[in-house]
Amino acid sequence: MAKDKKQPRPKAETPKGFRDYFGSDVTERKRMLDRIAEVYHRHGFDPLETSAVETVEALGKFLPDVDRPNAGVFAWQEEAVPGGGTAGDWLALRYDLTAPLARVAAQYRNDLPSPYRRYAMGPVWRNEKPGPGRFRQFYQCDADTVGSGSVAADAEICAMLADALEAVGIARGDYLVRMNNRKVLNGVLEAAEVDTDRADDVLRTIDKFDKVGRDGVLALLTTGRRDESGAQIEGVGLSEAQAAPVLAFLTSKGADNAATLDNLRAAVGVSQMGAEGVDELSQMAGLLSAMGVAEDRAVIDPSVVRGLGYYTGPVFEAELTFEILDEKGRRRQFGSVAGGGRYDGLVERFTGQKVPATGVSIGVDRLLAALRAKGLAGDEAAGPVVVTVMDRDRMADYQAMAADLRAAGIRAEVYLGNPKNFGNQLKYADKRGAPVAIIQGEDEAARGVVQVKDLILGARIAAQASLDEWKSQPAQTEVARADLVAEVRRILG
Amino acid sequence: MAKDKKQPRPKAETPKGFRDYFGSDVTERKRMLDRIAEVYHRHGFDPLETSAVETVEALGKFLPDVDRPNAGVFAWQEEAVPGGGTAGDWLALRYDLTAPLARVAAQYRNDLPSPYRRYAMGPVWRNEKPGPGRFRQFYQCDADTVGSGSVAADAEICAMLADALEAVGIARGDYLVRMNNRKVLNGVLEAAEVDTDRADDVLRTIDKFDKVGRDGVLALLTTGRRDESGAQIEGVGLSEAQAAPVLAFLTSKGADNAATLDNLRAAVGVSQMGAEGVDELSQMAGLLSAMGVAEDRAVIDPSVVRGLGYYTGPVFEAELTFEILDEKGRRRQFGSVAGGGRYDGLVERFTGQKVPATGVSIGVDRLLAALRAKGLAGDEAAGPVVVTVMDRDRMADYQAMAADLRAAGIRAEVYLGNPKNFGNQLKYADKRGAPVAIIQGEDEAARGVVQVKDLILGARIAAQASLDEWKSQPAQTEVARADLVAEVRRILG
Repeated sequence: MAKDKKQPRPKAETPKGFRDYFGSDVTERKRMLDRIAEVYHRHGFDPLETSAVETVEALGKFLPDVDRPNAGVFAWQEEAVPGGGTAGDWLALRYDLTAPLARVAAQYRNDLPSPYRRYAMGPVWRNEKPGPGRFRQFYQCDADTVGSGSVAADAEICAMLADALEAVGIARGDYLVRMNNRKVLNGVLEAAEVDTDRADDVLRTIDKFDKVGRDGVLALLTTGRRDESGAQIEGVGLSEAQAAPVLAFLTSKGADNAATLDNLRAAVGVSQMGAEGVDELSQMAGLLSAMGVAEDRAVIDPSVVRGLGYYTGPVFEAELTFEILDEKGRRRQFGSVAGGGRYDGLVERFTGQKVPATGVSIGVDRLLAALRAKGLAGDEAAGPVVVTVMDRDRMADYQAMAADLRAAGIRAEVYLGNPKNFGNQLKYADKRGAPVAIIQGEDEAARGVVQVKDLILGARIAAQASLDEWKSQPAQTEVARADLVAEVRRILG
Repeated sequence: MAKDKKQPRPKAETPKGFRDYFGSDVTERKRMLDRIAEVYHRHGFDPLETSAVETVEALGKFLPDVDRPNAGVFAWQEEAVPGGGTAGDWLALRYDLTAPLARVAAQYRNDLPSPYRRYAMGPVWRNEKPGPGRFRQFYQCDADTVGSGSVAADAEICAMLADALEAVGIARGDYLVRMNNRKVLNGVLEAAEVDTDRADDVLRTIDKFDKVGRDGVLALLTTGRRDESGAQIEGVGLSEAQAAPVLAFLTSKGADNAATLDNLRAAVGVSQMGAEGVDELSQMAGLLSAMGVAEDRAVIDPSVVRGLGYYTGPVFEAELTFEILDEKGRRRQFGSVAGGGRYDGLVERFTGQKVPATGVSIGVDRLLAALRAKGLAGDEAAGPVVVTVMDRDRMADYQAMAADLRAAGIRAEVYLGNPKNFGNQLKYADKRGAPVAIIQGEDEAARGVVQVKDLILGARIAAQASLDEWKSQPAQTEVARADLVAEVRRILG
C-alpha cells in the first residue's frame, strides 16, 4: 500500500520530564561542582564514578521477584546478549548515589582504604511524576565517609560543607550548618517513658514542627488537633508530662552551643542514650571549633528534625539564610540546600557486617538556583568575538584573524553561515552574545586595516544616544590589521 | 515456611559489561576533557548536555513498531506514571551523542544560532557484547557544526582537533590529522565509469586497503583473491583499466599537499564531482595554513578511507604517530584517536529540511590510554597528608592540624579508623598514597612538637639503606607545632 511508504516523521522531543542543558546551564553547574570537588579533594575525599546502570538486586529498594519492579526507577529486563547479561535479569538506572556506594563498599571492601572517604557527582534517575522544576533526571552531589564510627567524621563533613558553600561563593553569614542528633531524641523518649512502638508516631509528629509550631506539636503528641479545614487529626496519645520533654528538646536552642547543650542535658534526664547523644553533639561542637569553624557557621540546633527518622546519630542540614523573592514576588528565606547524617546498614545487606557511615548530599539544582538568585553563578564565559565575512573568497584571511585572537587567549570564531546578507551576520553575533565583531571588506583589505565593532558599547549607545551621536559610530574603530588583537583586548578590558 | 524468611543476600556486583571509576580514573579523564573543552570553547563552541534518556522514536535507528526494539540499545517501555510518560512509549539510553544532537537541532531550530557550534562530553550506552576494554557504558567527546556547508567549518574542526591534542599534552610531531574527501572518490568512480550500484562494493573493498595493501585491493577490485586460509574471495569485477584510477586515488599521497593535489587532479580526470572534491581539499589546506596549522599537523592523505562510506564530503582522522608496546610487548604505532567528517540528513528525518553538518568524535578511552602510555595523564593529585591519632581524646588537636594544612592549600585528613593499632594507621597512609604522616603522642603534645614523617623518602630509604641508616630515621623530623605547615610544605617541595 502506498500508505505504508509514507512514514510519519519522528517527533523531535525530549521524553516527558527530561531536559537538555545549553551553554551556561552546563558551565555554571560545572564551575560550581568543580569548586565543591576541590574542597572535598583537599579534605582527603576521592572521587568515585559508578556506572549509571545497576542490577535491581544490588539497588535493593526494589525486588526482582515480581513481574515488574516497583515504580520509582527506570528498569528493564536483560535480553540475551551473547557474552553480555543473563537474559531476564533486571537492570535499572540508579535513583541516588548512596545505593551504588553501598554496592561499591561491599564489592571492593578488601581493596578500599578504611575508612573510605569518597565524593560522587552525577545524574540520577527517578521514574516519577515530573512537575515544574521536577525532572526525571537530575544531579546529585554526595560526600560520605564509610567505615568510621567516630563523630570526628561527622564534624569533618559539617566543616567541609561550610567550606564548600563558601567556595562556591556563599558569604559567611549567608549560610548556617545546623546539627542535631537522633540519640538525643531517643533519650528524650526514654526519659518520657514513651513506648518504643509509639516512637515512629512521635517522629512523624515532630517532623511537622516547622509547619504547625510548638503548640501544634503539643496537641498532636497528646489529644490531637483540628487542622485548617476543620478536620480532627488524631493525637499520638502521650500525656502532657510525656510530651513536655519532647517539646523541651525541640525548643532547647539557647544563645550558644553551651546553653543549648545545657538545655538538652536537662531534656534527656537520666537516659543513658540521651546523654550519649548530647555528648556527641558536644564533641562535634568542640571539633568544629578546633577546625576553626565557629558557631556562626555550624551550630547545634535541636529544631532540625528532617532526617531524624532516617539517620541513627548526628544529622545536619545546611540552610541559606538570605532572603529571595519567590515566584509570587514574596520575600522568603532561601532555606535548605544540603542535608545528611549518620546511618548504619549501608553495607550490611550485602555482607552481613554492620559498617558505620556518615555523609551529606548537596541539592545541586537548589544551590545553583541560589547562586543565580545572588548573581553568583555568572559564567565569565561571554560569547565569542565574531569575525564577519564580507568577501567569501577571503575566508582564509578571516580564519587567520580568528586564529590570531585565539592564540592570544581570546574566544573567537568566523561566521560560517551564508555571508550574503550582512545584517544576518550581525544578528548572529547578537544571538551569540558576541562582545566584538570584526569587519574587513575589500576596501579595508586593500588598505591593510580592519573595523572593530564594540557591540556592548554599541548596544548601550543604541539605547541612549541621539541620532547624531549614533551616526558618528563611536563604537566602531578602524585599526591596522596588525593591531587587531591589541584593539580587541583593549575593548574586552 | 522458615525458608522464606532467609532471603539470600544480594550480590555486590556491577552488571556485566559495566564498571566503576575510582580516584585518578575520574580525575585524569576529567582533566583531559577539561582541557579539550577549553580549546573547543575558545573556538566558539558551546557545551550541550542532553538527557541520557531519549524516546526510541527520536533516536531513530530503532523503530517502535515491533514488540521490542532491536538489540543494540537499552530500551524499555514507559509505565503509566500519572503526569509522566505515556504508557507503552519506548524510551532508551542514548547510544551516541550525534542522535541527540539531531533531535536538539530540530527541536530548537528556531532558537539556536545558525550555524550552531556545539560540543558534548558524556557517557553513552550500548547493549552489546562486552569484552576486554569494551564496556556497555563509555564516554564520548564530540564537536559538531550544524548548519554550515562551508569547508571552512571542516577546516576549523581539523585545526581545533590538532589544538586539542596539543592541549592534552601530545607533542607536535606525535600526532597527525589526515584529511580526505568522499567527493574525490566519487569523482574517481565516475572517471572510471564504475556503475553506481557497484560503488558500495568498491567502498567496502578500499576499506581493506590498510589490511591487504595495494595489490590486495587491486585483486579484490577486479577478479578476486585468495585469503590466507586459501579461500577464494570474489572480486568486484572491475576491469584493470577501471581499477587503476581507484588505486591511483588511494596511493596519490605526494611529498606535500601540492603534490598530492596534483596526483588527485590526475586521478579524477574530467569528473566534475571529483574536481569539486579536490578543490575542497585544496581549500581546506589553504585555510589550515592561514590558521597557522602546517602540514606537519594536518595533511591531505587519500589513504584515509575509514568513514568514506558514511560521510558525504571531507573526512578526517587524527592519529598518534608514536610507538607503544602492545599487550604482547610488540612495538606498534598507537594509531587513530579521533575521526569525523561531513554528513547530511542530520535534521532531515525530523523536519524534512536538509541541514549540512560536520563534526569530530574523540575516542576518550583511547586518548586517555595514549596519555597514560606516554606518562602524560599523571594526576598531580597525590594522596593526602595523614594526621595519625595517638591519643583518641585529643582528636580536636589532630583535626586542627589537618585544618591548618588545608588552609595552606595542602590536602590533609585525620585518620578516622580505630586508632588502637598504630601500624594500621601507617598501612592506611600507605594505601592512601600519603606523602607525609603527622604523629603527635602525649610526650610530643606536652613539649609542643609534632613528628613529621616523609613517607616517600622513607620508602626509598627502606628499599636501599643499611640497618644503621634506617635506625637513624632521617625521614622523620621533629618540629614545633607552630612549624608544622612550613615543614610539610618543605617536604612536598
